[in-house]
Amino acid sequence: MQLGAIEAGGTKFVCGIGDETGQIIEQIRIPTTTPTETLAGVTAFFKQHPVAAIGIGSFGPIGVNAKHRDFGYITNTPKAGWENFNFLGYIRTHLNIPVYWTTDVNVAAYGEYQLGAGKDIDNLVYFTVGTGIGAGVIYQGKFLRGFNHLEAGHILIKHLPTDHFAGVCPYHADCLEGLASGPALEQRFNAPAAELANRPEVWQLEATYIAQACVNYTLSYSPDRIVIGGGVMHQEQLFPLIREAFTNLLGHYTETPDVMNYIQRIKLNDDAGLTGCLLLANELIATGQTVGS
Amino acid sequence: MQLGAIEAGGTKFVCGIGDETGQIIEQIRIPTTTPTETLAGVTAFFKQHPVAAIGIGSFGPIGVNAKHRDFGYITNTPKAGWENFNFLGYIRTHLNIPVYWTTDVNVAAYGEYQLGAGKDIDNLVYFTVGTGIGAGVIYQGKFLRGFNHLEAGHILIKHLPTDHFAGVCPYHADCLEGLASGPALEQRFNAPAAELANRPEVWQLEATYIAQACVNYTLSYSPDRIVIGGGVMHQEQLFPLIREAFTNLLGHYTETPDVMNYIQRIKLNDDAGLTGCLLLANELIATGQTVGS
Repeated sequence: MQLGAIEAGGTKFVCGIGDETGQIIEQIRIPTTTPTETLAGVTAFFKQHPVAAIGIGSFGPIGVNAKHRDFGYITNTPKAGWENFNFLGYIRTHLNIPVYWTTDVNVAAYGEYQLGAGKDIDNLVYFTVGTGIGAGVIYQGKFLRGFNHLEAGHILIKHLPTDHFAGVCPYHADCLEGLASGPALEQRFNAPAAELANRPEVWQLEATYIAQACVNYTLSYSPDRIVIGGGVMHQEQLFPLIREAFTNLLGHYTETPDVMNYIQRIKLNDDAGLTGCLLLANELIATGQTVGS
Repeated sequence: MQLGAIEAGGTKFVCGIGDETGQIIEQIRIPTTTPTETLAGVTAFFKQHPVAAIGIGSFGPIGVNAKHRDFGYITNTPKAGWENFNFLGYIRTHLNIPVYWTTDVNVAAYGEYQLGAGKDIDNLVYFTVGTGIGAGVIYQGKFLRGFNHLEAGHILIKHLPTDHFAGVCPYHADCLEGLASGPALEQRFNAPAAELANRPEVWQLEATYIAQACVNYTLSYSPDRIVIGGGVMHQEQLFPLIREAFTNLLGHYTETPDVMNYIQRIKLNDDAGLTGCLLLANELIATGQTVGS
């Protein structure tokens, strides 16, 4: 059975086809311009490559609660043309197949949970540190959500008194994303993350903020594992620093699995999202649903 | 059917009997001294008042994961004599009836969820601001937990640069509990909370920290409602200040129900915990389980 995947990002859409094991067979990239133009490319791809169901992981915020009027919409994005756009409705109308609809970070979390660094556990926190910070929580096999999807990349954390950078989040200034995303690193240190590789003080500071996220996620979800992906995490030197800072900050207050096992890097890398989409599409077929979230 | 309830605190145990609707019929208080002495009083009470099942909400940290060796234990408390004490085992051995076992804050959350300020919703965050800060999350009718119970009263938050108080948490210094619990207020302002009632700057600062907790819980759980209890919250002037600070801090980033409805005070007050215990005991009977958590 051929299944479809759409990773919808603010700069590009990645569309893929694959099978029910999550294996990706083919993929294309389509620049994110207007909904009409971008989605014409998406539907053309899936008309050339018919699939039985599609999983979508979208940039957001999006509406994921089927009880709300904004279900299936991209809601209040600053991205021109996409605000209040009924993305799910468009895909269902034009392709007329079952569609699973969730956030971009959730599909990557699901890929990791099923086939990557979280495949042996019950409860996973996955978060990505890149252009933004986003977190997805899988609780007993399902996405944790409530009134809407989580936004735990924007939690408020302790702004170190020695760090005088104001933060880049347009909503919260110095929230986690405001202090520790890729753009925060670049603006604070006046250079792209890749050019800062040899400055240990940069990564010590970054690790302290990411470790605070790990502490708060531990206290808030008590997961079996925390998996971290995203562009900033290509700096592999971060992981030992994060584990050390995490252990110190948590102060042995609550029990976690051994930290080497507990805090891990993403395993599927750039394929995590598409893989998750394929597996979510497959679940719709398996359960006979026409729409999932 | 008569059911039992034990609210086990660090200074006193409250034992109650009641019915399957959560109605409390009789209760007694027993000082928390040694496990042997205190629990002799507890078992004597329930031998005089036979019950079909008991719900326990205990101070902690405790082990609530049945897969772990510390299941049923009070684990690493500084309370002399209670560290690594098999509380659940003791009760089951001495009373030989079904027992539901969870944290003190969870039983109060459950009482509020079923009969109090959360009775019309799916997903509730309840937290208590008193001697400590504890949070319980009810997700689709069940306690959210993972490797162990949550400890979201200790999350790291933004320590205001104008607040030079170091924090009282022995594990994390200036975590949420360290900055905003009753003892933090008393030490920072050199007077018990009740005597600070007429100092608006005290409550403005306290509201900012409690609002940060509400922001982080919103981003982390997206609940339908946040209910706040505990001794410090007897200062009712806090609620409008918390709602205002919450709205400003969240910056309309994610949608919540209307803030007046969203952030509410506890309704069952001191009865929330016993009520929750009774209802959890009743669920054991209804589902035919001998132990629950």
